[in-house]
Amino acid sequence: MQEFKILEKILPMLTQREDIAVGPGDDCAAIDLGDGVCLLAGMDQMVCGLHYFPDVAPARIGAKLLKRNLSDVAAMGGEPAYALLSLASLGGQAEWFEQFFQGLEEEARQWNVSICGGDLAGLPAGKVREIMSLTILGRIRKERLCLRCNAAAGDFLYATGCFGNSLTSEHHLDFTPRLAEGQFLAGTYTRAMIDVSDGLLVDASRMAAASNMALRLDLDTIPLRPGADLSGALADGEDYELLFAVRPELAGELEKNWPFNIRLTRLGTFEKGSGVIDVMNNNLLKLKNIGYEHQFK
Amino acid sequence: MQEFKILEKILPMLTQREDIAVGPGDDCAAIDLGDGVCLLAGMDQMVCGLHYFPDVAPARIGAKLLKRNLSDVAAMGGEPAYALLSLASLGGQAEWFEQFFQGLEEEARQWNVSICGGDLAGLPAGKVREIMSLTILGRIRKERLCLRCNAAAGDFLYATGCFGNSLTSEHHLDFTPRLAEGQFLAGTYTRAMIDVSDGLLVDASRMAAASNMALRLDLDTIPLRPGADLSGALADGEDYELLFAVRPELAGELEKNWPFNIRLTRLGTFEKGSGVIDVMNNNLLKLKNIGYEHQFK
Repeated sequence: MQEFKILEKILPMLTQREDIAVGPGDDCAAIDLGDGVCLLAGMDQMVCGLHYFPDVAPARIGAKLLKRNLSDVAAMGGEPAYALLSLASLGGQAEWFEQFFQGLEEEARQWNVSICGGDLAGLPAGKVREIMSLTILGRIRKERLCLRCNAAAGDFLYATGCFGNSLTSEHHLDFTPRLAEGQFLAGTYTRAMIDVSDGLLVDASRMAAASNMALRLDLDTIPLRPGADLSGALADGEDYELLFAVRPELAGELEKNWPFNIRLTRLGTFEKGSGVIDVMNNNLLKLKNIGYEHQFK
Repeated sequence: MQEFKILEKILPMLTQREDIAVGPGDDCAAIDLGDGVCLLAGMDQMVCGLHYFPDVAPARIGAKLLKRNLSDVAAMGGEPAYALLSLASLGGQAEWFEQFFQGLEEEARQWNVSICGGDLAGLPAGKVREIMSLTILGRIRKERLCLRCNAAAGDFLYATGCFGNSLTSEHHLDFTPRLAEGQFLAGTYTRAMIDVSDGLLVDASRMAAASNMALRLDLDTIPLRPGADLSGALADGEDYELLFAVRPELAGELEKNWPFNIRLTRLGTFEKGSGVIDVMNNNLLKLKNIGYEHQFK
């Protein structure tokens, strides 16, 4: 499904109230609540067989659904607080539901998130066992909001963690959303951030395009997850790491003060122009064999 | 799918933060924003083939999805403001999506609601053409919040509109959510309200059960939609009308001051006990031929 092409046509149709600080097209929407506080709102869905295999333990599925959404809050720099869940299912056993909700609830408690509403429905017999959607709500101070459109010429691109091979390694189930890192960075070292769900190259190019910038990537610096090659690191997706832009004069301080165990890597530089290019001046988005509209989102 | 039985087991597992004024189990959750204001949050989904037939015009499907959720905000007495959408689809034509979003957006504008975020995904080939979920956010002053658990002994049960035959009459597509009526009633004439989506009898019994009350219904008073019989009025569902409890001493004033064209009818009285009974002392919930776990939600 050509999600991007459809959105290109549809997003401009949607009128936004004046109290919407950030509308559709970023990791979350931001609603101005007054007093300098924004409500963050994001929504992300998972389809059995596409976003996880049917034999995955239900508790891990529930946790993954929440974590994907937490990663979107992290990318805005925010703090999650509430979630609502829609689940449509062929009507499995009560045990499956219990374990699913246990996994979801356990993950939610870790982040002080309350599952405060939702909807259950049946599905007609067919190939999809279940499909689920979660809405995450959170808060952030307005002056700390991180948007993908805020990168400027000369900014360095940094990333948390490493990339590629998320499916086989089960990182896509086991990852920790980078909430602490996002909150540390937001408004101090960056105002430009995105999370990597669809692949490093696609998400980096979205950040560059939203900022009207080109991005020069140093491919040699990209940290590979065990078992990953460069092509996978660029295109596999489901890394749930943060990409963010840092002004060069803050870079040294950031690297010195970085308080987390998770690695921090400088991957490139934003510059005037468009597209994602490597240090050899190749246009990476035109390279073959990088399947950035792959099935496994 | 035995949604109610699953929820009975799962809802107690979900811990709620202290700032959650109303947790899962009502038409919307309510989050205390401070200064006497609550954020309302509700989520409701629709499955092609279950909640509408595939040949319904996409614009009407989009409008219905929003209106179902607006009806939940109406039942809390609130004012809607923002919505997020998840849509998973086999990947139909661009035209379908455009018309769907046009219908959704047109309805949203009427109520000053902004579609501020969401997610599109594909579905594996199968019998479900698309499935969609919408999260509605709104506001209400805390002291005006209407809960289904607030009915008291002696309160009259009132209803807006008429009941039954929603599917054939296409009321389930054409209805107007009772937002104006809900806002007029909330905190003035009632603090106990629910919307009728699953059928008058089921939703009235939910209100009675949540309030620890019995409800005595006068079946002769139930207004029938053209083409509906009493059984359909009790059980068809998708009426999207409001049921609410009114203290007897306010009933006369309410009937005198009711400013809307839509009819207002007194259907019964709450009393000590449990269940929904008719004036002949029959336990309505035990009557046969009232399909209150029917397919068409």
